[in-house]
Amino acid sequence: MPSYTAPVADMMFLLRDVLDAPGALSLLPAHAETDLAMIESILDEAGKFCAEKLHPLNRSGDEEGSRLANGVVHTPKGFAEAYAAFRDGGWTGLSASPEFGGQGLPRAVQILVDEMLSGANLSFGLFPGLTRGACEAIEAHADEHLKSTYLPRMISGEWTGAMALTEGNAGSDLGLLKATAAPRGDGSYSVTGSKIFISSGEHDMAENIIHLVLARLPDAPPGTKGISLFLCPKFLVNGDGSPGARNTLSVGALEHKMGIHAQPTCVMNYDGCQGWLVGQPHRGLAAMFTMMNAERLFVGVQGLGVADASYQTAAAYAKERLQGRASGASGTAPIIAHPDVRRMLLTMLSTIEAGRALVLFTALEMDKETTHPDATTRAESAGLVALLTPVIKAALTDFGFEAAVLGQQVLGGHGYIREWGQEQHVRDARITQIYEGTNGIQAQDLVVRKLDLDGGAPLRRFLGLIRETLATTADRSELTTERDALSEALGHLDDVTTRLGGALSEVDERNAAAVDYLRLFSLVAYGWLWLRIADAVLRVGDVTTTGRRKLATARFFATRMLPQSQSLARQIAAGAAPLMAPEASWF
Amino acid sequence: MPSYTAPVADMMFLLRDVLDAPGALSLLPAHAETDLAMIESILDEAGKFCAEKLHPLNRSGDEEGSRLANGVVHTPKGFAEAYAAFRDGGWTGLSASPEFGGQGLPRAVQILVDEMLSGANLSFGLFPGLTRGACEAIEAHADEHLKSTYLPRMISGEWTGAMALTEGNAGSDLGLLKATAAPRGDGSYSVTGSKIFISSGEHDMAENIIHLVLARLPDAPPGTKGISLFLCPKFLVNGDGSPGARNTLSVGALEHKMGIHAQPTCVMNYDGCQGWLVGQPHRGLAAMFTMMNAERLFVGVQGLGVADASYQTAAAYAKERLQGRASGASGTAPIIAHPDVRRMLLTMLSTIEAGRALVLFTALEMDKETTHPDATTRAESAGLVALLTPVIKAALTDFGFEAAVLGQQVLGGHGYIREWGQEQHVRDARITQIYEGTNGIQAQDLVVRKLDLDGGAPLRRFLGLIRETLATTADRSELTTERDALSEALGHLDDVTTRLGGALSEVDERNAAAVDYLRLFSLVAYGWLWLRIADAVLRVGDVTTTGRRKLATARFFATRMLPQSQSLARQIAAGAAPLMAPEASWF
Repeated sequence: MPSYTAPVADMMFLLRDVLDAPGALSLLPAHAETDLAMIESILDEAGKFCAEKLHPLNRSGDEEGSRLANGVVHTPKGFAEAYAAFRDGGWTGLSASPEFGGQGLPRAVQILVDEMLSGANLSFGLFPGLTRGACEAIEAHADEHLKSTYLPRMISGEWTGAMALTEGNAGSDLGLLKATAAPRGDGSYSVTGSKIFISSGEHDMAENIIHLVLARLPDAPPGTKGISLFLCPKFLVNGDGSPGARNTLSVGALEHKMGIHAQPTCVMNYDGCQGWLVGQPHRGLAAMFTMMNAERLFVGVQGLGVADASYQTAAAYAKERLQGRASGASGTAPIIAHPDVRRMLLTMLSTIEAGRALVLFTALEMDKETTHPDATTRAESAGLVALLTPVIKAALTDFGFEAAVLGQQVLGGHGYIREWGQEQHVRDARITQIYEGTNGIQAQDLVVRKLDLDGGAPLRRFLGLIRETLATTADRSELTTERDALSEALGHLDDVTTRLGGALSEVDERNAAAVDYLRLFSLVAYGWLWLRIADAVLRVGDVTTTGRRKLATARFFATRMLPQSQSLARQIAAGAAPLMAPEASWF
Repeated sequence: MPSYTAPVADMMFLLRDVLDAPGALSLLPAHAETDLAMIESILDEAGKFCAEKLHPLNRSGDEEGSRLANGVVHTPKGFAEAYAAFRDGGWTGLSASPEFGGQGLPRAVQILVDEMLSGANLSFGLFPGLTRGACEAIEAHADEHLKSTYLPRMISGEWTGAMALTEGNAGSDLGLLKATAAPRGDGSYSVTGSKIFISSGEHDMAENIIHLVLARLPDAPPGTKGISLFLCPKFLVNGDGSPGARNTLSVGALEHKMGIHAQPTCVMNYDGCQGWLVGQPHRGLAAMFTMMNAERLFVGVQGLGVADASYQTAAAYAKERLQGRASGASGTAPIIAHPDVRRMLLTMLSTIEAGRALVLFTALEMDKETTHPDATTRAESAGLVALLTPVIKAALTDFGFEAAVLGQQVLGGHGYIREWGQEQHVRDARITQIYEGTNGIQAQDLVVRKLDLDGGAPLRRFLGLIRETLATTADRSELTTERDALSEALGHLDDVTTRLGGALSEVDERNAAAVDYLRLFSLVAYGWLWLRIADAVLRVGDVTTTGRRKLATARFFATRMLPQSQSLARQIAAGAAPLMAPEASWF
């Protein structure tokens, strides 16, 4: 049977030796007292919880699924108890604001725990993950009364959150949404409309569920500039803060999905339900986007977590499964002897570890963005975070899905049946490429908006960091292969970036390049982080199995993955014409 | 709701205008009377049957699944009736030998009908598909008594077939299998063992099921040279040919799979069941491999069929779904206006149509291989078929799965739920990359065995055909882009092929290159076929929507897909060292 082990040692190596988290955090007054030993003990405990309490519910949760009966959603056996233990263990408020009862830890800690949750049980992890997103939106935009009424109970995990954006005819294009909100005259609103794809919209794990609902006020202009955000609790809150009367919102159906079966993805009906405005009228989309960076990082990490879980099973299986002979040997060998099995495992490993490094790098920048004393530094970090957010969301989930497919392939027919859990990973990972903005939308965000942000300053800054690493590692002759491969890939990225600012600067041209550009960008970013990881292994003189594996994986990435950058650059240079030439009716 | 329309016009264009099937078939006495009008009417009828009878059962079959109760397998509602109609319509024996009641049609016709079956209902298509495979093995290797007893009833579809190869510890490496067969003294054998992953092993659609079981005789040498093939009917056959006493074979369980839920994939137990030797003792694997070419072509076509079904839904959805604005336009546009949606659809389309062309080209060669009057021609065709079989199995299923994933992505969240059928296509397509030899095994077959076949003659012959097309189309200035792209890709293929014969000729080196090499090979083959298709469009002067779509798709493939060949060549040239350097314990 598959097991899950949180990769705490790999995580700590990145924080300590690659990204110098202690150095970065020491400059932030809010986190100056967070030391690595404390982080490690948190990660150890979280890993234990995920392995012992959540992973055992992953397959049973998939098989049983959440069920709707008479308007009540029943989560699978064990989920409510596991959530209670999670809440009571204090895991819901790790990075939340101490002002409302959170622990105020760095975002990097939250992100690493999120990875574990996702690897152990993706469906479960969405409950606290969405609650956190809702809390961030409320904290940033709601008035003091709403904050003090809702945040402490949500951060403590007593109440959970849900985000109600999508409607049947308004998905990627939220400007089309039709839900309405009418003033009731008492400062609250009547919210009416039907929403689909609402994760954790209804369930039996918490005594209240706080919905953030996008809707239009009566005087709203059309399109995205006429959308407002409303807080609609499942139970209205009494004066003493306890849940009171049932609000008029209800679950209409559960979606029948490819995966994340344990997660109740709801069709929600808001029937004149009472809600309160969060933020300014008609500025709801902006309020939602405040927390979008964090949510998209979270989704990227979901892809990463599932990929690592799949890797763990595939590697264990490959070392045990006897089938075929190793070249030049007699007798049956474990399939890890076969070059193609290694290709699959190294592809997984090389994208998992670099993906984790990229998201941790960004998480540290997010803490700088919000808490660094120096305004210029905050702005620079904000720029990097904005640039890297779509890359992380799309790259970690695309590579994550590809890893899950490879992890299934390693097991052959045994990967196609339930027994080993590998097929569930594929089904679960697939949603991460779709929700919170499809990966195509992420790529569009990168090429149409983020490249030109602040006149291109964040992009220049990021590419400058890569050049800096190439320079500072120049005397490591052991890493010439890695450096040369990265330099070449960076050259391709430079080249197409220049084109997107010149001959390919029209919107259709940029959009035609988008997905390939994001893949190229992520390959370069991963190559950069592998160079940093390999440099760190050599610097600290890690000659253990772990250190040697990292050096070997860096070499694999440089020689067998980074060359893809060349073809991607060619495809981008071909421009939009091959895509736009056919008339719509020809398809 | 999704619908399925068999792409008969595209199929006919390939047969008539691209591959000159009439010319090829006219040289084969067995098929000289098959004309295109007849083929077209068969395809029309088959397409109608698939669209009207089988496609409507695809989703309900997935949701209901086959169920096992008290040793009896119940296929989903409607399957038995649909099978009866299929059988009564005479669809089971299209390409089977007239000697035993088959219609003796060219394999190309069978392959095209197989594509439709797979696109409409993959689970259903496996029933007749596996029966056909069993028939081919019986016809090629069994004695006259077995042939006359079983073939007519199997070809008529009254009885179905199953192949029992895999055991829990013997999958890719069949040499490890443990099932035994002991002589009973009456010319028959007692077969004992447990097999897994047995498609159509037990069901309620036919009055008898004929199992071909691999097992070891008492005096069998170890490994693959000690395996024999036995025919074990579910019901022993009476002297008058009717089914008699129940044989001692039974279904132990149904596998719980990611997809093809309607197909009963069985754990089968053979408890001293009576069987008859097919072919020579200890030569069972060779007998199985006789029909493996056809089976692998069939699996490739399954990937193709599912990809096309997914494309049809994605294209229809993209033309209807209003979301976002087209660049430079006002008002909401169908998402087909977006360049990235077009990229996804064109990626699907360009691999579907070229894949169909490759498998049809090969099917025509298979008919030449078996029925051409000239021995040299037969041998040449056999070489091409042997070379292309692993390419077709792996490339059509890898591209097929990728297409299904893209077809799901086009629908966003609506692709992740059941409603549109796109997520089922992903789950169903996934098995085709795994069964009948994983795609890694196919790639290994290509690089380790097929490249050197007959001193490399088939490979030279195939590459020669590509050069010939480059030469014969040299004066079509409209196709310069396509020709240049193909020439360059062919250069990369030549380069790495030379390396695999030289510096990279060790087995580990070849296996390290295998999957990338097969992908590169298939890109070149597809590029070749797109050049032929585009040339045919220009030659016949097809200025319809269809013709223009084909020209546009050829351009897309040349500019946005073929450049991948460059990176693949680089990755292959990196050799095995990056894969083999890590010790097994490091993973």
